[in-house]
Amino acid sequence: MATVFAGMAASLDGYIQSASGDLAWLNDAMAPGEDYGFADTEARTGAYVIGATTYRELGGTAGLGAVPTYVVTHDAGLAAGPHVRPYAGDLTRLIDTVRSDVEPGKDICVYGGGRLVTGLLELGLVDELSVSLVPVVLGGGVPFFGAMTSSTRLELRRCRPFPSGIVLLDYRVVRS
Amino acid sequence: MATVFAGMAASLDGYIQSASGDLAWLNDAMAPGEDYGFADTEARTGAYVIGATTYRELGGTAGLGAVPTYVVTHDAGLAAGPHVRPYAGDLTRLIDTVRSDVEPGKDICVYGGGRLVTGLLELGLVDELSVSLVPVVLGGGVPFFGAMTSSTRLELRRCRPFPSGIVLLDYRVVRS
Repeated sequence: MATVFAGMAASLDGYIQSASGDLAWLNDAMAPGEDYGFADTEARTGAYVIGATTYRELGGTAGLGAVPTYVVTHDAGLAAGPHVRPYAGDLTRLIDTVRSDVEPGKDICVYGGGRLVTGLLELGLVDELSVSLVPVVLGGGVPFFGAMTSSTRLELRRCRPFPSGIVLLDYRVVRS
Repeated sequence: MATVFAGMAASLDGYIQSASGDLAWLNDAMAPGEDYGFADTEARTGAYVIGATTYRELGGTAGLGAVPTYVVTHDAGLAAGPHVRPYAGDLTRLIDTVRSDVEPGKDICVYGGGRLVTGLLELGLVDELSVSLVPVVLGGGVPFFGAMTSSTRLELRRCRPFPSGIVLLDYRVVRS
């Protein structure tokens, strides 16, 4: 069965986007020659699940729209390509739907942060979490995680520090 | 000159205390035989700087009160031992005062999270940050970092993953 994974670059204080939206905090931290796993992530992804705001901001990102891309939105007029599927229902049914739409052997990438990842985590629908921890305290912006009514235990699968100071952390969600 | 360092155990979503205040998330994650550096931290500490709330909660913790312990508070009636110094002034003067009170060769440990660490970071008064990243998403509680008006670049000094999944991350603050 396809694995549902969510992964983002985040500041040490947990933001995936700066308050102003500029990417200097991330671009300045990344170093040439370090493999942050972007290619691996794209290769394993058979479908994306993404929030409408993130989709609008990252619409041009490689991968998005080339495989089934479910955009959680109530905007029926969302600009859509051939593989883009706007979705407005509940998240449990969404993940069921996406699973049936994924090429065998491929996984489902949840892209973005905030409400979508939080909602999926609370429903127990996320199997893996990856964080590329960037050596900066941003002080504000868009958080990766929102408030949740229950906690989620994780198992560390891999920890890869790079000379730039970025640390890739791969976790598996522990089912209670 | 004494180094000012702040270090806490935090969940992946950045909380140093659960919403209910119970410590199960932390105690369940720690494994016997893993050295999280508590003894090293205590050995290097010549003075503590701590918020009043944290002080009240952790008043009995080893180390606190055995060396100069500055409690940032407006409560003149704070229960104080022989080494406990309530402090109500500005943070820059506080750190100057603590530096002059520390045994040569020892450092200053900022204990706690939230407003105190955030205030000191914003003023450029923190030299090192350490986070013991606990493999759990808490969903709420007391955050390590609060909102700041400026970002702070860090340099990763050390990254130590343990079999338990706890990852010790030591950073140096980069002066701009």
